[in-house]
Amino acid sequence: MILKQFKKEFYFSFMLQQLNKEVLLKRREALEQVIKRRFIYQPAFSLYGGVAGLYDYGPVGCAIKTNIEQYWREHFIIEEDLFEIAATILTPEPVLKASGHVDRFTDLLVCDSKTGTGYRADKIVTETLENRIAKEGDKLAADVKARYLAVIKDVDTFKEDKMKEVIAELQIKALETGNDLTDPTPFNLMLPTIVGPSTKLPAYLRPETAQGMFLNFARLLEQNGGRVPFGAAQIGLGFRNEIAPRGGLLRCREFQMAEIEYFVDPTEKSTFKKFNKYINLEIPLLSRQLQAEAKQHQPFKMGDAVKEGIINNETLAYFICRTYLYLVEIGINPVNIRFRQHQADEMAHYSSDCWDAEIEMSSGWVECVGLADRSAYDLNAHSAATGQKLQAARKFKVPQPRQVLQVILDKQKIGKELKKDGMALIKYVEALPDDEKQELSDYFQNHEDKVFNIDGKDLTLNRQLVKFEQKTMNVMEEKFIPHVIEPAFGIGRILQAIIEHSFNQRDDPQKTFFKFSPRVAPVKCSILSVVQSEEFDVVIQELTSSLKKLGISCKTDNAGVALGKKYARTDEIGIPFAITVDKETLAAQSVTLREIETTKQVRVPSVEVPRLILELSAGLILWTDVLAKYPVFAAKEEDA
Amino acid sequence: MILKQFKKEFYFSFMLQQLNKEVLLKRREALEQVIKRRFIYQPAFSLYGGVAGLYDYGPVGCAIKTNIEQYWREHFIIEEDLFEIAATILTPEPVLKASGHVDRFTDLLVCDSKTGTGYRADKIVTETLENRIAKEGDKLAADVKARYLAVIKDVDTFKEDKMKEVIAELQIKALETGNDLTDPTPFNLMLPTIVGPSTKLPAYLRPETAQGMFLNFARLLEQNGGRVPFGAAQIGLGFRNEIAPRGGLLRCREFQMAEIEYFVDPTEKSTFKKFNKYINLEIPLLSRQLQAEAKQHQPFKMGDAVKEGIINNETLAYFICRTYLYLVEIGINPVNIRFRQHQADEMAHYSSDCWDAEIEMSSGWVECVGLADRSAYDLNAHSAATGQKLQAARKFKVPQPRQVLQVILDKQKIGKELKKDGMALIKYVEALPDDEKQELSDYFQNHEDKVFNIDGKDLTLNRQLVKFEQKTMNVMEEKFIPHVIEPAFGIGRILQAIIEHSFNQRDDPQKTFFKFSPRVAPVKCSILSVVQSEEFDVVIQELTSSLKKLGISCKTDNAGVALGKKYARTDEIGIPFAITVDKETLAAQSVTLREIETTKQVRVPSVEVPRLILELSAGLILWTDVLAKYPVFAAKEEDA
Repeated sequence: MILKQFKKEFYFSFMLQQLNKEVLLKRREALEQVIKRRFIYQPAFSLYGGVAGLYDYGPVGCAIKTNIEQYWREHFIIEEDLFEIAATILTPEPVLKASGHVDRFTDLLVCDSKTGTGYRADKIVTETLENRIAKEGDKLAADVKARYLAVIKDVDTFKEDKMKEVIAELQIKALETGNDLTDPTPFNLMLPTIVGPSTKLPAYLRPETAQGMFLNFARLLEQNGGRVPFGAAQIGLGFRNEIAPRGGLLRCREFQMAEIEYFVDPTEKSTFKKFNKYINLEIPLLSRQLQAEAKQHQPFKMGDAVKEGIINNETLAYFICRTYLYLVEIGINPVNIRFRQHQADEMAHYSSDCWDAEIEMSSGWVECVGLADRSAYDLNAHSAATGQKLQAARKFKVPQPRQVLQVILDKQKIGKELKKDGMALIKYVEALPDDEKQELSDYFQNHEDKVFNIDGKDLTLNRQLVKFEQKTMNVMEEKFIPHVIEPAFGIGRILQAIIEHSFNQRDDPQKTFFKFSPRVAPVKCSILSVVQSEEFDVVIQELTSSLKKLGISCKTDNAGVALGKKYARTDEIGIPFAITVDKETLAAQSVTLREIETTKQVRVPSVEVPRLILELSAGLILWTDVLAKYPVFAAKEEDA
Repeated sequence: MILKQFKKEFYFSFMLQQLNKEVLLKRREALEQVIKRRFIYQPAFSLYGGVAGLYDYGPVGCAIKTNIEQYWREHFIIEEDLFEIAATILTPEPVLKASGHVDRFTDLLVCDSKTGTGYRADKIVTETLENRIAKEGDKLAADVKARYLAVIKDVDTFKEDKMKEVIAELQIKALETGNDLTDPTPFNLMLPTIVGPSTKLPAYLRPETAQGMFLNFARLLEQNGGRVPFGAAQIGLGFRNEIAPRGGLLRCREFQMAEIEYFVDPTEKSTFKKFNKYINLEIPLLSRQLQAEAKQHQPFKMGDAVKEGIINNETLAYFICRTYLYLVEIGINPVNIRFRQHQADEMAHYSSDCWDAEIEMSSGWVECVGLADRSAYDLNAHSAATGQKLQAARKFKVPQPRQVLQVILDKQKIGKELKKDGMALIKYVEALPDDEKQELSDYFQNHEDKVFNIDGKDLTLNRQLVKFEQKTMNVMEEKFIPHVIEPAFGIGRILQAIIEHSFNQRDDPQKTFFKFSPRVAPVKCSILSVVQSEEFDVVIQELTSSLKKLGISCKTDNAGVALGKKYARTDEIGIPFAITVDKETLAAQSVTLREIETTKQVRVPSVEVPRLILELSAGLILWTDVLAKYPVFAAKEEDA
């Protein structure tokens, strides 16, 4: 069902089976060894004892990261004509006060009352109860076990009081010492700093890249000729001062994100023209209702999912489709992806509807992309904090009747009272935008006078001199605050998923390889010789040089070891193609080209090979095309 | 001279003249307007009043930034097979204590004694004296003026005491208030933070990406099979808590860097095989000697510069050549680049020789790339701080005689004294690496006993039981600490230089354009129609879709305005190629292709145009090739 739609020309033949958690877990140990031995990523600052939640990407991990970011640009930014920006990580406190992060971006912290060791409250409760269930097994009374499971299910939504109650009720203690825990208190997850020596501006490292896009909304709207919809995008780092991070790349204190803020007219978000081409695309969804019924995710035709109201609008649904296709294209098994809708009580403070792209890994289903409808929350918040209107205009082709609040001023009296300044006051008040007229009307409900500062002068308007009247008028445009659909990608988590899904072992389990999509592969091809020889070195240098001229990364290995061993080394880091030269090919001015998964080889004229690798790496042609075009070469490589 | 070597097939025809500071200054105002109007970059947090030294890149700036980073990867990482890594920004204090940044990465701060406003001491002295010279003009006594100029020249090298003296002597006061200044004190330029709720680990935002590469040295050496030379590279953000940043992108508190740490055997750095191809390349150098003689920079053949000892070694010279070619390739005028050697007293604390690539801009010569020989400073520092040896091995093809320190133990006495533990002690001491044998020998110069902890037991060795002897032995390898050559690029400064050098005005100075290198251009082509029509829209959609499939960014503009106006809009942000469709081309299944600088147009079959744009954008073909191949189309566009 899900797979059928990809089968035609599908690159990842091995993915035609589901990779469930058990399969992935079985491979996990061998994978961990490769990750360490080949420095795909490793804990940062190991020389200094390490810091939890900080990881360095080595050459292989870094290249994959660059490649999936680059393809994200092609798939999203170029395809949707998004405005990519690069805003700063350093963010002054008032911005994050307005966005709600200073007050609400917190986890509940409990500490060992004697040693001071900190724990995330929900995590220590979960871990303690899971340990008890595992340890006591059948000895545990059924009602106690049921209570434990109920707490585990909901603990991440508990507020302070509830958490305190549960910790007391279930006698949760510090893990290492058994000491009492302090009361749960909200711990802000932002990393603080101070900018400048004299201003000493309190600031934070941004917790998400999104705010930079909201703050630049007006500039971007102008670049788009004042029209919505349009989207902003940003690839960059976010920071969270996690209380006690574990789980490798899945929970880091510093993590790469790729976010889109797609600004739409709220009256238009239900339809999205380009969504039409995806109405028959089937995607596994785990809706709020399926969760309430304790059911598994199910494949839905996306057109139906919107029609049936499971997904709120076509704009959100369109980005779910695009996200799904992106994940599959970079090498995530389509069967191991699902989109889970948030429960009302688990959404972030800014969100009005939210779907997570979850990917099944060895540690279970992991949220890798969040697709949130943030409504007008952030633009409203920054408007309120700064007094700057963050609005767009809806332009009509024909005049539209609208209820407009009219201000009727007693011009005579004002003129008499204020003389020349009266005219300035009248002009100013009449030119107020609609919403400020409304504010003025509200204000006069319980105030006598309103003071306006006009050209540096304080001018007072008494409420007796002004009347308000609703009137129907034909207007050519009206202002509105755009809503925002936000797809937010966690690059590190996606990278972890790619690595787990791509990892494979041959018949000999020591012989491991990654079946990366060529566009994601860290290095595109290796260039090997059968034996060390100056004659071969010349050819290898020429090939290397032509590949590099095309911007293709390649790796030579002219060590004096058997070819099979060289293949094993390049397989281990997932180099999809290997070029080898030997006496026979040299004479024929050709090379042997080998593909990693099938280990099949073909003979290709030397002069054609760089272009071929380029087109394979860009996904313009597939290995099956190469097999069809060039003569297959039979060699027993593995007995080397 | 300098230009001749680029003339053949040189892309930037307009660069065949020097762009001196005056030319650039004249264009500066018009450029500033474009930067703002088209949101190339702008001050960050303007809605909230702004923060000095923080800038957001808009879509145009961000795309150029991405493109120059991507080409940096091709030019350096792929070409030199460098190991690119991505280490964290958050850096624990002990790392930066070891690297010297906690103690020495400072600027001298003086404050207004009444208001507390902070100034960078060297900047306030310079500005005050320059103001006096400008204001008093000829009234200023010649000796006073000479004194002022001497101070301005050297003030950035003054230490605290000297700075205090000069401030008192020259009566330097706070700029705005005229109040006295506080004594100069070193202000650390790193931004501090605290990681974790319970560990409360003091940390900083990294001031350079380099440290992450030193800390991963051992892992990377292993990936390179234990061999040097090899290089690490990193593209990422650095942070400096500048005292009072000014100068736009040239002095930011958060800035993108691209750094290489090239690890070499110090006995081998004088020769670099690939340097041979550049010995005849001419590059403008401003050596230490030329500076001492108050002379201008001069072009040198790079081979001669090394032979004459102006540049210390071929490895450093090679990276100077590569840096120069990179800068030219991305659109910096070759005549406006010079490499300036640091004076002994201006080098960073870790540096043993340093050349800056300086680019001439409207603000004068600006350091954009630093090429430093950091010797073994950093690897030594982290070895000393952690006790982990950061070394490589020099392997010999034939055994080499070396003076080796031998430890001769009185095994009998030791066995008698320590019984079974004696053997363990003997084995341990005999297996000590050479440098630790030396340390032991030094230690016994003024100590009686040395305690070793072996397998958890404290075992004591008395100096009477051990003798040391230098002996000549044949060895197959020896350990050494690699030296490091570091090219460090400031991406923001380079971007500013590209923008200034590429900015142009046509005969009508209102008509501005950027002549970007196509690979750097933010958007590769625009697709325009002569008039609004559904028929044209279909063709435009097809073209757009084929371009996007090749990963080419393009911009359509089907607004109902004259074609000349559309060209002006795309020229303003430097889109190098414009495709237009009209009735005539539609009938012939072709399009018109226009180039930005020449405004020349050719007729190209529609089906060929996407590939053509791809190859132009990748630098595989030039516009002159297109002109030679396709029929030129004459149209008067500018009178639209």
